[in-house]
Amino acid sequence: MNERTAESAAMERLRKLHLTGADTAMGKLLRSFWQPVGRSEDVQPGRARKLRVMGEDLTLYRGETGTPFLVGGLCPHRLTLLANGWVQGDELRCMYHGWKFDGKGRCTERPAELSAGNGHIKVASYPVQEYAGLIFAYMGMGEAPAFELPRKSVFERPGALQFARIETWPCNWLQQVENSMDAVHVSFVHHWGRVGSFGSVVAATVPELSYEETEAGIRQTAVRSQGSKRVSDWTFPNNNHISHPTLEVDDPWVDVGVWMTPVDDENTMRFLIYSIPSTTPETDARIREYFEKYSEYDPADHHEDLFVKGNLPDDRLVQLTSAQDYVAAVGQGAIVDRTKEVLGRSDMGIALLRRLYLREMAAIEKGVPGKAWQRLSADAHMPKQVNEVAA
Amino acid sequence: MNERTAESAAMERLRKLHLTGADTAMGKLLRSFWQPVGRSEDVQPGRARKLRVMGEDLTLYRGETGTPFLVGGLCPHRLTLLANGWVQGDELRCMYHGWKFDGKGRCTERPAELSAGNGHIKVASYPVQEYAGLIFAYMGMGEAPAFELPRKSVFERPGALQFARIETWPCNWLQQVENSMDAVHVSFVHHWGRVGSFGSVVAATVPELSYEETEAGIRQTAVRSQGSKRVSDWTFPNNNHISHPTLEVDDPWVDVGVWMTPVDDENTMRFLIYSIPSTTPETDARIREYFEKYSEYDPADHHEDLFVKGNLPDDRLVQLTSAQDYVAAVGQGAIVDRTKEVLGRSDMGIALLRRLYLREMAAIEKGVPGKAWQRLSADAHMPKQVNEVAA
Amino acid sequence: MNERTAESAAMERLRKLHLTGADTAMGKLLRSFWQPVGRSEDVQPGRARKLRVMGEDLTLYRGETGTPFLVGGLCPHRLTLLANGWVQGDELRCMYHGWKFDGKGRCTERPAELSAGNGHIKVASYPVQEYAGLIFAYMGMGEAPAFELPRKSVFERPGALQFARIETWPCNWLQQVENSMDAVHVSFVHHWGRVGSFGSVVAATVPELSYEETEAGIRQTAVRSQGSKRVSDWTFPNNNHISHPTLEVDDPWVDVGVWMTPVDDENTMRFLIYSIPSTTPETDARIREYFEKYSEYDPADHHEDLFVKGNLPDDRLVQLTSAQDYVAAVGQGAIVDRTKEVLGRSDMGIALLRRLYLREMAAIEKGVPGKAWQRLSADAHMPKQVNEVAA
Repeated sequence: MNERTAESAAMERLRKLHLTGADTAMGKLLRSFWQPVGRSEDVQPGRARKLRVMGEDLTLYRGETGTPFLVGGLCPHRLTLLANGWVQGDELRCMYHGWKFDGKGRCTERPAELSAGNGHIKVASYPVQEYAGLIFAYMGMGEAPAFELPRKSVFERPGALQFARIETWPCNWLQQVENSMDAVHVSFVHHWGRVGSFGSVVAATVPELSYEETEAGIRQTAVRSQGSKRVSDWTFPNNNHISHPTLEVDDPWVDVGVWMTPVDDENTMRFLIYSIPSTTPETDARIREYFEKYSEYDPADHHEDLFVKGNLPDDRLVQLTSAQDYVAAVGQGAIVDRTKEVLGRSDMGIALLRRLYLREMAAIEKGVPGKAWQRLSADAHMPKQVNEVAA
Repeated sequence: MNERTAESAAMERLRKLHLTGADTAMGKLLRSFWQPVGRSEDVQPGRARKLRVMGEDLTLYRGETGTPFLVGGLCPHRLTLLANGWVQGDELRCMYHGWKFDGKGRCTERPAELSAGNGHIKVASYPVQEYAGLIFAYMGMGEAPAFELPRKSVFERPGALQFARIETWPCNWLQQVENSMDAVHVSFVHHWGRVGSFGSVVAATVPELSYEETEAGIRQTAVRSQGSKRVSDWTFPNNNHISHPTLEVDDPWVDVGVWMTPVDDENTMRFLIYSIPSTTPETDARIREYFEKYSEYDPADHHEDLFVKGNLPDDRLVQLTSAQDYVAAVGQGAIVDRTKEVLGRSDMGIALLRRLYLREMAAIEKGVPGKAWQRLSADAHMPKQVNEVAA
Repeated sequence: MNERTAESAAMERLRKLHLTGADTAMGKLLRSFWQPVGRSEDVQPGRARKLRVMGEDLTLYRGETGTPFLVGGLCPHRLTLLANGWVQGDELRCMYHGWKFDGKGRCTERPAELSAGNGHIKVASYPVQEYAGLIFAYMGMGEAPAFELPRKSVFERPGALQFARIETWPCNWLQQVENSMDAVHVSFVHHWGRVGSFGSVVAATVPELSYEETEAGIRQTAVRSQGSKRVSDWTFPNNNHISHPTLEVDDPWVDVGVWMTPVDDENTMRFLIYSIPSTTPETDARIREYFEKYSEYDPADHHEDLFVKGNLPDDRLVQLTSAQDYVAAVGQGAIVDRTKEVLGRSDMGIALLRRLYLREMAAIEKGVPGKAWQRLSADAHMPKQVNEVAA
């Protein structure tokens, strides 16, 4: 392979890095991990919702007993949406002709036919797992792996205050993951809209960076000064974990987990968990009130305000941070053309990220096992310094 | 033709069953019948409206004397919309440069030119016929057939209360026609959103079905119990006629005629006529007030409410029935892929319907005459039993 | 080339007349002239706006000192929108990682990198010129021509009242230019919505037309009667200049300049300058109040009202005139198919216009110089008669 061919092949790989259809290398890679697909509180017992994950139409429902299930989006009979059907026990009945399916996707009843089809009639079905206010699904081949990699001990602290949010952004998932693996953006994006006289502030805060592959993903370190060192703990393939101040100086810091799950290649669900240790009843109440207030915020609902009018939200922790990242990532367009970028040394996190993806995609394409990513044996140490900017 | 080729050809036919462009077999078939294209009350004397029928842009206008006309959508001169022009007498003048056309589509005046073009300048023109509050058009080749097939004696009862409605649904016309020829759906779709404890009710009401080709279309019979036999009288190619209770137990039953006219292959105008015999002035007034109240209802205006929030309309006869069918048909997507269905014996009405369409389309493709569909020599007998569910 | 081939080639040229991408003949032609791209008052010092011109994404910003600049739309680093960045002095800093660019598009700072890239990192940059309340840009090859052709002495009268407006219509730019070069439309389009008994009025007002190529463009003359002669002075390639009554009989006439700048091939920015000589303080105040009131009017914001409901604005000079032209041009669709037209002798202005475009496009395609269009050596004489209709 000569130089030109090699460059062209590299370009081609860059062009495909973001595609998540079931028959793409990245689609297969993402599907080999548990992925959050819904927020627990959004699917009440006995209710169903349609959703789309990596281009597949699905139905997420919760049985009357409370168990969640993820099955195909359309009834195989006449192909209407199953999400409009009735949940009965742990089964789902189509609203069109009453065909009924269990949580494994098997047809159990066809009221106007002689039989339920003797096991030949099925819809897709994927294992689900509830964790920290989110519903995760395994949409890959074969047996689901143990539900270990997405777990963090900080999300399992007894009595901690925990809140889940979901946003849906009109851009590709990878733009958002790359934003997580890019500590420099914090110095700029998270000043966006708030700094009048800006120039000198910025130069002082550009960090020294280091990125290190771990057994679970990537450890990202950004040192801005002797007293300012931030570490984030990124888990393969699309989850980040950071820690930053909550509302007031004396509040315990919040641990934030964020996952980017593709709806399709141009839209992304962004799941966030916020976890704060419980302290006094007054502090707990104040924090709880705050997160409940902003529970449904999505910058996508304010797209024109942000992009055209430049109107920013008043709230800083949830709304402004989210809106700023939104402008950066959605400002790249629905799918950015990475072959036109000009990367620098400060993009080393993004470069490492892509190398890992390409390495694991290559394994999938060759049909050999990829890296056996595992939960960190010890929690990442995330230093806490005040006056840090949230990312 | 071997088995695989035959199957593939059958799949191909299924894929084309719904296409209504002027050069398609189904498009030619539908165009060989009178089709409703507008509601009489929506086109006042001296006014014009643009509309789209089977992918063709058209102008529906009513002359100052009251006569309706259907002509092409664009002025041939500079191709702006004729519907924005002026109706003058029974003619239509373009708003751009004043070219004037008569109801046959012939240019009769070009104010800034030396002549009107000596008969060489024309727009399309189709014969129209007003009937029961609707405007029908014949868009086929050759002479229009006599206006007989769409007529029903129930829509011509002297003094009857009669109301017309139009809805426009974002899905293919055939999904709606098939819904009419599928009596099982009544037991499920028309319980949608209204039944808490559902299971046992349903099993009891799945009907025994029979379908029979008539000289006008298909006679559909659904027997749910000894006292519950419903007959609907479907007229080729896209009109159904059913009868069901009106508002109160003692009200005379309403006869409902429904036609599905394609706007294009992904949108459909749904025309409904409701006809109720006149009784006492009080009853008449109550029924009239009811139908006038819901005259403009269209479930498509409430799409998000229905599909996402599951909010159903309170009114049962017009709104809920329509909303339920809407969710079933639009839930199949803009154009359902019939090659992926799993039909059963209870879909025998749909199977017959498709056989008739394919037979008549084959005649068109071969250039031989199709069946000479004719108005039923005697009205279909539609048994009336109380406590029946509307479809 | 035989007759059929010649006709087919002519059709092909008609089909391409409206395309303005950077690699098209018309795109190159339009780019070889100064084009308005923004309204001065819409870009305040220290602010940036994204815009799209002839299919190119751009950033229009004004330095803190007041100088306007037009540069590329995306930061070359990670390709997010530059318009969301910070203006600092006369430079623009990206909101994502702080890369900074000067008004020539050169990268001057990359805070997290070792250097600004030694002059290798650039975005597009186009010369701009402010004139009469608009910002013009030269997006062509080579040195920008002197800013002469767009100038009119009427827009440079000391102390005159001058107002700029912008509208954005969902149709191709050429439909709007052709509307300017078509004096007959005035007799019809500008009666639209206002005439009850219409027929006889119209016939009386169809003008005698003449069109003459000048050193700057086309002189259009429309004589409606001995006392009614209108002249408009059209400047190549997309600017018209007309004059008509202002608000009251004794007001001095308003000179209107209008430019149609493609956003892309299906959307067009329409820039208007209104210039009225100053008279008494009371008259000046009345006129100023009027134009400020309608400063933001755009018929595209009232599309449904105009096309579906036929609701017209009350104001005549700015709103109604604009709405009427909007209905004519947008009524032709996003891109009209000129190969289907039926032109007449009264379309002679449009025929001349197309001949000039095709001649100049042919020069570009052959790589030879086109006509050296120049500002008229003497102002066009535009007769003023009262009771004329605005166009």
